Amino acid sequence: MNLIDKIRVIEDYPVKGVSFKDITTLLRDPEAFHQAIELMIEAASEIDFNVILAAEARGFVVGAPMAYAMKKGFILVRKPGKLPAKTIRREYELEYGKDFLEIHEGAIMPGDKVLIVDDLLATGGTSAAVKEMVLSEGAHVAGYVYLIELEFLEGRKKLGDYPVKSIIRY
Amino acid sequence: MNLIDKIRVIEDYPVKGVSFKDITTLLRDPEAFHQAIELMIEAASEIDFNVILAAEARGFVVGAPMAYAMKKGFILVRKPGKLPAKTIRREYELEYGKDFLEIHEGAIMPGDKVLIVDDLLATGGTSAAVKEMVLSEGAHVAGYVYLIELEFLEGRKKLGDYPVKSIIRY
Repeated sequence: MNLIDKIRVIEDYPVKGVSFKDITTLLRDPEAFHQAIELMIEAASEIDFNVILAAEARGFVVGAPMAYAMKKGFILVRKPGKLPAKTIRREYELEYGKDFLEIHEGAIMPGDKVLIVDDLLATGGTSAAVKEMVLSEGAHVAGYVYLIELEFLEGRKKLGDYPVKSIIRY
Repeated sequence: MNLIDKIRVIEDYPVKGVSFKDITTLLRDPEAFHQAIELMIEAASEIDFNVILAAEARGFVVGAPMAYAMKKGFILVRKPGKLPAKTIRREYELEYGKDFLEIHEGAIMPGDKVLIVDDLLATGGTSAAVKEMVLSEGAHVAGYVYLIELEFLEGRKKLGDYPVKSIIRY
């Protein structure tokens, strides 16, 4: 199976000139979804880590199955106001604007080896902000695993000197 | 392991008088997260279904690992404006207000046997709205699986005559 064929490309979304990669068609296909997660697990198994950190909402769709299958802890990165306890917060640059991300205080522990997982590496703004949060909590960035990488946006340049793995590249 | 001990209860969140059940502490614990998903899979294995449908964002954290492990398709229910293609939309009642939910047009196919999964069954407003979307697309509701059920809110009464399973009950 060629996973890239399961992704629906939507032109001019969310803004004119952007070819949006819609993974919902891949997720809807049992074999494609299973294979995508298997390949992400295979990539992650080359990295030494103890916890997966993923940003809402699509990051949860790929990060949670990996954490479950690899028996790792799972940390939620959320939009402001979504987490019930005290949080740490960081501004980040989106492909099309700015926003804030939050993590519960104490969720990342000093010495943790954190694998950052997302469905998409685009400009790298989200992952770079998450990386800074990991480092500011005294933990290590173990690496990054993505389902899709938009290579032409050169997001890797923002991620620091850590392993970066992706399954489908444009 | 007693999973309920891994859940952090936050009093008076999001409003006074509510004891919010915070699952982020459970997710952070590798064994607790793994066991929670295993128990949800065990519950789901008694139900005949071909696709899992879950609402953002915490629904993805439990629904996606189940879909992956059970080799089922996965359908995203999202807040308005998050899905890139044409959607169907439905208003629903939250425990503390109202909002809309969206699903991609064509994501649910006629004849599908849909398992609705979420982290929490509270008043049942979200799940009841999702059930109506499933039925309006000509598909079957196979049943519901939740990590947590707040029994005193009697959410089951809104879900129709289908199997409802939950792992942790208050």
